[in-house]
Amino acid sequence: MYEYIKQKAYEANMMLSKYGVAPFTWGNASACDREKQVFAIKPSGVPYDALTPADMVIVGFDGIRVEGTLSPSSDTPTHAVLYNSFHDIGGVVHTHSVNASSFAQAGMQIPALGTTHADFCYGSVPCTRELTREEVETDYEKNTGLVIARHFYEHDLDPNAIPAVLVQSHGPFCWGKDAKTAAYNAVVLEIVAEMAMKTIDLNMNQCEIQQYLLDKHYLRKHGKNAYYGQKNQ
Amino acid sequence: MYEYIKQKAYEANMMLSKYGVAPFTWGNASACDREKQVFAIKPSGVPYDALTPADMVIVGFDGIRVEGTLSPSSDTPTHAVLYNSFHDIGGVVHTHSVNASSFAQAGMQIPALGTTHADFCYGSVPCTRELTREEVETDYEKNTGLVIARHFYEHDLDPNAIPAVLVQSHGPFCWGKDAKTAAYNAVVLEIVAEMAMKTIDLNMNQCEIQQYLLDKHYLRKHGKNAYYGQKNQ
Amino acid sequence: MYEYIKQKAYEANMMLSKYGVAPFTWGNASACDREKQVFAIKPSGVPYDALTPADMVIVGFDGIRVEGTLSPSSDTPTHAVLYNSFHDIGGVVHTHSVNASSFAQAGMQIPALGTTHADFCYGSVPCTRELTREEVETDYEKNTGLVIARHFYEHDLDPNAIPAVLVQSHGPFCWGKDAKTAAYNAVVLEIVAEMAMKTIDLNMNQCEIQQYLLDKHYLRKHGKNAYYGQKNQ
Amino acid sequence: MYEYIKQKAYEANMMLSKYGVAPFTWGNASACDREKQVFAIKPSGVPYDALTPADMVIVGFDGIRVEGTLSPSSDTPTHAVLYNSFHDIGGVVHTHSVNASSFAQAGMQIPALGTTHADFCYGSVPCTRELTREEVETDYEKNTGLVIARHFYEHDLDPNAIPAVLVQSHGPFCWGKDAKTAAYNAVVLEIVAEMAMKTIDLNMNQCEIQQYLLDKHYLRKHGKNAYYGQKNQ
Repeated sequence: MYEYIKQKAYEANMMLSKYGVAPFTWGNASACDREKQVFAIKPSGVPYDALTPADMVIVGFDGIRVEGTLSPSSDTPTHAVLYNSFHDIGGVVHTHSVNASSFAQAGMQIPALGTTHADFCYGSVPCTRELTREEVETDYEKNTGLVIARHFYEHDLDPNAIPAVLVQSHGPFCWGKDAKTAAYNAVVLEIVAEMAMKTIDLNMNQCEIQQYLLDKHYLRKHGKNAYYGQKNQ
Repeated sequence: MYEYIKQKAYEANMMLSKYGVAPFTWGNASACDREKQVFAIKPSGVPYDALTPADMVIVGFDGIRVEGTLSPSSDTPTHAVLYNSFHDIGGVVHTHSVNASSFAQAGMQIPALGTTHADFCYGSVPCTRELTREEVETDYEKNTGLVIARHFYEHDLDPNAIPAVLVQSHGPFCWGKDAKTAAYNAVVLEIVAEMAMKTIDLNMNQCEIQQYLLDKHYLRKHGKNAYYGQKNQ
Repeated sequence: MYEYIKQKAYEANMMLSKYGVAPFTWGNASACDREKQVFAIKPSGVPYDALTPADMVIVGFDGIRVEGTLSPSSDTPTHAVLYNSFHDIGGVVHTHSVNASSFAQAGMQIPALGTTHADFCYGSVPCTRELTREEVETDYEKNTGLVIARHFYEHDLDPNAIPAVLVQSHGPFCWGKDAKTAAYNAVVLEIVAEMAMKTIDLNMNQCEIQQYLLDKHYLRKHGKNAYYGQKNQ
Repeated sequence: MYEYIKQKAYEANMMLSKYGVAPFTWGNASACDREKQVFAIKPSGVPYDALTPADMVIVGFDGIRVEGTLSPSSDTPTHAVLYNSFHDIGGVVHTHSVNASSFAQAGMQIPALGTTHADFCYGSVPCTRELTREEVETDYEKNTGLVIARHFYEHDLDPNAIPAVLVQSHGPFCWGKDAKTAAYNAVVLEIVAEMAMKTIDLNMNQCEIQQYLLDKHYLRKHGKNAYYGQKNQ
């Protein structure tokens, strides 16, 4: 009965592997069904070339496994918190992609420096604070999700417009209206992070993109008057 | 009746994808027919592996669609301005390639630092000024073209000798005598940008290539006495 | 009678080639049989695409060839010392992977800057001192192993928790419970080195990962209460 | 009658393309026959995927075409000078590989910073002075060769031990006992250049490799007592 989201989660996981943002068994993607309050997620530690749609594990929004014999990704509680906190998202992705993780390790947000960034994200990609000892030692993965959600809440950020975050000392989590979009955002984030790193290297003092150009690019792709792409798609 | 330029535009678009300068649906190439005052351009938001020559959209030099049911690239008005402003060019290409876009984001031109650069471009690859709020909010893509054209005019640059530009905070536009050459220039620009970035990193004070070496390399490939390649090609 | 370790050594060598950490004939992997006190290792100077399991050379823990007609890797004495010094390891790998070797050339350890590092290694990847003239001129490869072993002994490092080292001015040696794990560690080391380099570039003052986060990530994958992956694997 | 060197030149050219050091038509390799005082070289401006052994052009050590209908590489006179000046070499290669060319553009030699470098080159890879206006305007390609040869003569460098040079503001030329070795050296040079760049980035003050380690590594692969690889190869 969960074939639909299993297929979507599977395809998003394979996309991470195809685009090189998740070597070996690193990274995981999930796809949710909001009505049934469940999501399909990659099993833990299974390499991508051995993965099948049937391997996806079904987990409730409470983080408890509903179907499947394999253990779900160890990051499953983070996904559950994100589905509970961000009410419009249909997919979540976690990777250790090199450039985005380097920003996370440096404790830096990724500033919006150009239109490539503006095309996918309406402002800087934020970097959370470090987790405390207590948050790491008890319910680490759940607390990772809570720290992300709190960051968005406290900084008044809209998860529909900012589809990615860096967890400090760790790496990126991304999301989107469905699992494919979440995986797409994870790949774009990696490209945008590389560009930001090189821009900063060339010009320390480069300011962020002008607000009106950020508006223009984000809205021509995402706003209700978006005119990028084909109308009937 | 436009099969010829559709085929050329298609091949140039596929070249962008093949050489990795346009992931997903990013980037677009067009090929023009100067007699008929039209150009064939990639449809907006269609991924490269789904593209066919028949998908190319025919647009007049006034920017209005002449043939085809798909929406043309959102950057179509920029292409139209470039065809109107640069009278010898037969192809235009836009990408978000990482290294060239990083220079654009840094607001820096790409200086001519060696013969690899001199082989394709007779001097620095210029970087335009930022567009104003008014230019972005109304007719953004058309104004992008006008800012490029004005930059070449005001700085007395020859678009036949300088086949590329960086639009500040955005990325490169390239052109050439035909669409294939424009796509070739977009790939070369990306290599040259990487080399320039690394050269600057190694040696902050590296001056530009000597004028006589720039002359030699540019002219042995492009001048009327060019002796690179096979004569009868 | 040594088919088992020959196959394992072969597969680990091919993994080095597949993941791009050992171009041409560079790099070598070995697999040991502790009971028989022998290991199978790549023959010297044979390119990966010509390699077969039967080519693997069997060498005793004393460094003397036991079986095979080809000369073993010139780094064989280093492998022998590591098997003698680190009593739980089943595989050893040497590469000249670019990012890890750059740290070795810079004479710098790779600090643990994030969870990607913590997932494979419990603390910094150490960098040995330079070898002395005497150590280089006589029994160079054996002395390379002794300098590694002494570094771990003197700094009280556990080779089961720190599965990699940088030999100064040279490059990385990695190990693990079997040859496949050693090769895996060599690939991960290269990714982690790239991430560390970029993190340092972004933020000179970035401190190391908090100890409790290092504990958490290392132990969720490697401790006796590890919960990453599938239980019955 | 020149099939043998045509085949060798062809294979060396294809190796440049395979390893990504010569995109499009850039780069060229030649193989010489010292007895006949001729060499086979890539025709100018022909893309690698259209190349056949029969396309190779035969040129005398005086730089004049002996056989073939295609125009030889525009860099042919440089190859001729190198064959005349360096009496033991059997192959010459020129590329615009990104990392090596960046050092050339920065006007910097590539210091010997580790054993990867020492394994192929006995000391720094030198960078020539700039060519003068006169040298560029008349017989440019021949003068490029003369400036290289003079650099080796004046600095008392042995071309058999230093198989590569950077021509300032231009890029690398490499050579070896045969064309395949020359192409191999061009690929290794690119890897070594990347490593040197990253090492310098990590540690400005990193000194060169100790002389005795340079001796050891170079001589274990190249000296008369070399013990790397298989004896009877």
